[in-house]
Amino acid sequence: MTYNIAILGASGYTGAELIRLIANHSSMQIKALGANSKAGQTMAEVFPHLRHLDLPALVTIDEIDFAEIDLCFCALPHKTSQEVIAALPKDLKIVDLSADFRLRDPEEYTKWYGNKHAALDQQSEAVYGLTEFYREEIKAARLVAGTGCNAATGQFALRPLIEKGVIDLDEIILDLKCAVSGAGRSLKENLLHAELSEGYHAYSVGGTHRHLGEFDQEFSAIAGRPVKVQFTPHLIPANRGILATVYVRGDAQVIHETLMAAYKDEPFIEVLPLGEAPSTRHIRGSNFCHIGVVADRIEGRAIVIAALDNLTKGSSGQALQNANLMLNINETEGLMMAPLFP
Amino acid sequence: MTYNIAILGASGYTGAELIRLIANHSSMQIKALGANSKAGQTMAEVFPHLRHLDLPALVTIDEIDFAEIDLCFCALPHKTSQEVIAALPKDLKIVDLSADFRLRDPEEYTKWYGNKHAALDQQSEAVYGLTEFYREEIKAARLVAGTGCNAATGQFALRPLIEKGVIDLDEIILDLKCAVSGAGRSLKENLLHAELSEGYHAYSVGGTHRHLGEFDQEFSAIAGRPVKVQFTPHLIPANRGILATVYVRGDAQVIHETLMAAYKDEPFIEVLPLGEAPSTRHIRGSNFCHIGVVADRIEGRAIVIAALDNLTKGSSGQALQNANLMLNINETEGLMMAPLFP
Amino acid sequence: MTYNIAILGASGYTGAELIRLIANHSSMQIKALGANSKAGQTMAEVFPHLRHLDLPALVTIDEIDFAEIDLCFCALPHKTSQEVIAALPKDLKIVDLSADFRLRDPEEYTKWYGNKHAALDQQSEAVYGLTEFYREEIKAARLVAGTGCNAATGQFALRPLIEKGVIDLDEIILDLKCAVSGAGRSLKENLLHAELSEGYHAYSVGGTHRHLGEFDQEFSAIAGRPVKVQFTPHLIPANRGILATVYVRGDAQVIHETLMAAYKDEPFIEVLPLGEAPSTRHIRGSNFCHIGVVADRIEGRAIVIAALDNLTKGSSGQALQNANLMLNINETEGLMMAPLFP
Amino acid sequence: MTYNIAILGASGYTGAELIRLIANHSSMQIKALGANSKAGQTMAEVFPHLRHLDLPALVTIDEIDFAEIDLCFCALPHKTSQEVIAALPKDLKIVDLSADFRLRDPEEYTKWYGNKHAALDQQSEAVYGLTEFYREEIKAARLVAGTGCNAATGQFALRPLIEKGVIDLDEIILDLKCAVSGAGRSLKENLLHAELSEGYHAYSVGGTHRHLGEFDQEFSAIAGRPVKVQFTPHLIPANRGILATVYVRGDAQVIHETLMAAYKDEPFIEVLPLGEAPSTRHIRGSNFCHIGVVADRIEGRAIVIAALDNLTKGSSGQALQNANLMLNINETEGLMMAPLFP
Repeated sequence: MTYNIAILGASGYTGAELIRLIANHSSMQIKALGANSKAGQTMAEVFPHLRHLDLPALVTIDEIDFAEIDLCFCALPHKTSQEVIAALPKDLKIVDLSADFRLRDPEEYTKWYGNKHAALDQQSEAVYGLTEFYREEIKAARLVAGTGCNAATGQFALRPLIEKGVIDLDEIILDLKCAVSGAGRSLKENLLHAELSEGYHAYSVGGTHRHLGEFDQEFSAIAGRPVKVQFTPHLIPANRGILATVYVRGDAQVIHETLMAAYKDEPFIEVLPLGEAPSTRHIRGSNFCHIGVVADRIEGRAIVIAALDNLTKGSSGQALQNANLMLNINETEGLMMAPLFP
Repeated sequence: MTYNIAILGASGYTGAELIRLIANHSSMQIKALGANSKAGQTMAEVFPHLRHLDLPALVTIDEIDFAEIDLCFCALPHKTSQEVIAALPKDLKIVDLSADFRLRDPEEYTKWYGNKHAALDQQSEAVYGLTEFYREEIKAARLVAGTGCNAATGQFALRPLIEKGVIDLDEIILDLKCAVSGAGRSLKENLLHAELSEGYHAYSVGGTHRHLGEFDQEFSAIAGRPVKVQFTPHLIPANRGILATVYVRGDAQVIHETLMAAYKDEPFIEVLPLGEAPSTRHIRGSNFCHIGVVADRIEGRAIVIAALDNLTKGSSGQALQNANLMLNINETEGLMMAPLFP
Repeated sequence: MTYNIAILGASGYTGAELIRLIANHSSMQIKALGANSKAGQTMAEVFPHLRHLDLPALVTIDEIDFAEIDLCFCALPHKTSQEVIAALPKDLKIVDLSADFRLRDPEEYTKWYGNKHAALDQQSEAVYGLTEFYREEIKAARLVAGTGCNAATGQFALRPLIEKGVIDLDEIILDLKCAVSGAGRSLKENLLHAELSEGYHAYSVGGTHRHLGEFDQEFSAIAGRPVKVQFTPHLIPANRGILATVYVRGDAQVIHETLMAAYKDEPFIEVLPLGEAPSTRHIRGSNFCHIGVVADRIEGRAIVIAALDNLTKGSSGQALQNANLMLNINETEGLMMAPLFP
Repeated sequence: MTYNIAILGASGYTGAELIRLIANHSSMQIKALGANSKAGQTMAEVFPHLRHLDLPALVTIDEIDFAEIDLCFCALPHKTSQEVIAALPKDLKIVDLSADFRLRDPEEYTKWYGNKHAALDQQSEAVYGLTEFYREEIKAARLVAGTGCNAATGQFALRPLIEKGVIDLDEIILDLKCAVSGAGRSLKENLLHAELSEGYHAYSVGGTHRHLGEFDQEFSAIAGRPVKVQFTPHLIPANRGILATVYVRGDAQVIHETLMAAYKDEPFIEVLPLGEAPSTRHIRGSNFCHIGVVADRIEGRAIVIAALDNLTKGSSGQALQNANLMLNINETEGLMMAPLFP
């Protein structure tokens, strides 16, 4: 069976990544591509790397007949997404890649994003899209909220450790190194090649990054009590990748065993041998997440490092994995491509 | 049916690229990986980006039982390849990625490579592996010689034009811009990140690059008279890609029509609308070649620009395309992945 | 003696480069920094790399008292520059870095830039700022027009050869590889790091780049008859540098000797030994231009390659060199820093 | 007065950087360049970016007449340096850039470097070369030991805080992001452009990096009791720069005031306004160190971030600053160039 797919926000990086993945999917067919600002253009004009594909032209969202769509990916900007989704058919399966439906508590949403939520009904039914930990809920969901790419990376490193109680919950520091495509296709001086290449810096320092809302929500829920982590992202002169260096208190061997056990049946999570550290270059363009654990010289401390591709496992790959579950397709379909190296 | 595949030289970039591609191939299975210098290691050690794959460990070539192999890729260094292939079973199907069997005339081989050829019997039976132009010979071949990556790029831009006589054969200049993976995994100061990034230069200037041997052989054969082109490659701070800017004399519109006609049924060659120029960023990691034609302000002159990924269409992708033909598999199998962008 | 300097357009890359150079100049002092769009900000805000310097805050151009200024650099956008300069005091020494005063013929200006020139009086008195070839005129000039960065690179390779008649004037092809800072600080999708890095392409293909106006003007003037060259620029994923690969007809040794003779007393032009090719990585951040000559395998053809830093020798370094001459300061003052490598 | 300078190890990156800096120094003249492996070559051959300079050819160390040398920089590999320095004249002023004389305790040296020290006499007289904190000792020293580049960065962030007791000494985590030139010109696969660019990873994870020996020595000495920090370096795809993100416990405002006070008269240390974070792109190619302080959302925690250029302030610039002091020259001579941006 072939499912008809719509992608809203097809002119951004996550939209293009969805098309790259779905192009080789055995049971999905792209039926509609929405992008209000570039409606009327072909994908070959907007993304020449997709010119070999036979794709529908970009249209406004209004022009799409959702009656013929089996599942819709929303790769729209934050705030726009909630407005659009509120107006879509109420029985349409949706995977949202924005931040709009990640936080379950409307007050938390307002705290981190500044505005009142405009689609509270949808927010209450949305399932948090971290596939490996919400698999059954996602299978049954109508609306799945894709996670933040940083939030996904940190959670892959930490969730099993918090759940099993093998680390000190009050002493967690996440130092993240993020490639630039995570900032999207936005036109800002500091994203220009001339400014970004050959330099790197921390941003949202001090606990102001919005993905902290997801960490707070998820880690506290697992622990059954409030957990507040320290989180500092850095912008690195590379295009794809997130490397999370996580400083924890606990026994490295126990931590390693806990992660090995948690992920032993997961097709996309690779736990490296104890003492080895992953690299973003080894997961680029793929849906894999590599995790390493190393003991520190200071007794009782360990470093957990996770690497994934922000556009794939951190965003569009995760979205497709969730869509596969929602449509009862093999979960790994369209996602087993090996990383691109060099 | 599933064919058993061996890859010799599996610890280099073209070997790794073959594995990346074959990993998703529906009717090939990697049975043996040879790499004398790294024998005993696993692929996860040599190329951690392939660690999710269930691959045989690296062995010496001697250890491989070729009786169970249906087709062997040789991704060995020049000169080594001819010695190894001379000793392989005489009925084994082989796709060679080295330069050893590209030149049909042994004297031309010696002129460009400096040594006497050590496998003249095999050389005489080898078919030049530029798929789009030797398709029937490749189907029937036992030994196919992969082309030079620069040689492939230049030929995609020029072969139909030479064949149809629409350009001046004595006024062809190829200015190539090559990414660094074309230099392989060799340890040289000028390939270090600190030296290469943020700088670029011409090399093998003045007509000394060995791929000229291929241009001379092929273009002269098509034209039925000697054709000597001018060819200057440049090393660019990027990992994958070749951009060939070809300066020719002829009518741009006729040139464009000639290329459109020549490639209209080719699955991997995309001729852009007249006046558009391709970019290497739009073919990265794929088997596609984009070609553009632009008229110059000087009447009677045109610029033809071709872009491909040196490791894929310029090398391992071409090799797999040829192997598909030799094994009577669908030619595009395992090769339709979209480029990686950004 | 210390001269008071004003820089208009101080918030762009060429403005910042001027400040970097003048910061270590023994007899210049920055008195005013104009940048209408960012007036009120400090340089530490606009360019944090200059925060250690004691600089005046940015002001609107109107706020500057030009009576106390000895020389003014205009690093404003094209078209803006002519309007601003028309309104400046008529006896103020000016070095303009825009394209507005490079073309002596107003019709040529309109042909390449599309609009009528708004400061014809100033245009008629402007001296073309290619220091090595207009040194005496520049010393006596009130208004010097900085050259295009591509135009400078090509002229360094070609002017002596055209003047001495050692190459065929109808067979000149310039294939240029330009780093991205040449595009300025403009916010365009294709200048984003995620889009530009790891890819490269030709632009303004076919003879549409505006710097051709300068080539036409200068080469025709030297030759005493119309000279039209072919010129294709390419955008390379690096921040600084232009590499001009120039295909000419002539004897390589004669060409090399001609360049050696022409530049033997020039402090910033280095002609490499015959057969060697320069690299942009060896001139980065400096005012030097490296030139190499190599004979092609086709008799009677040669390749001349020139490398310089577009922001320094191609723009702000050239501007300072000219200002030194105009103020009767040692020509090399403030410009002898070695390139930054790696 | 002009001092005669020798540089041993002139064919490495720190050697080249010394030459770049000294080339514009008003009272130093390079008299001898030693590089055993490349003796006989010119600097134009080894480092073409220095070809405009009138430099002595490379010689073996034996060939140098140290009687005419006022100060010698040793930019030799670890272990080689101690052997060479042991054999140099005992009254020759030396600035060593290797790790050989950084650790005062021979047992600590052996613990971190694995071998017994071969020049214990010299080790005992060596002064640790962190200029801002050993200024008086350096002025009087004969032999100064340049610090590790990571060690320098971390100490700039932390020394005043430890000295003033404003942070918790048992809760210090340094997460460093290091550019690749810090690895030197060594030929390793993971330093190749094709492998390093577009990827990043942690190395020496768990407290095994040798620069920890310096942190232990210096921080414990200041605190008057053992201080052990946690330190994880990461290799970033950029050429120059170290960014130290330091997680501490203490009041951000007090920390900021402490750093402001400590560095208020330092010419090269710039403390940013509270809440701002530095970037490596703003110190590239310069001798400046930028330091920022931000309060974390978790009360009582702060992040201190320091950025410097590993080859300049982290190595050769520091060495020249020390040499200036040892020769009683103005400390900032030759070091006031502005960073290169973009």
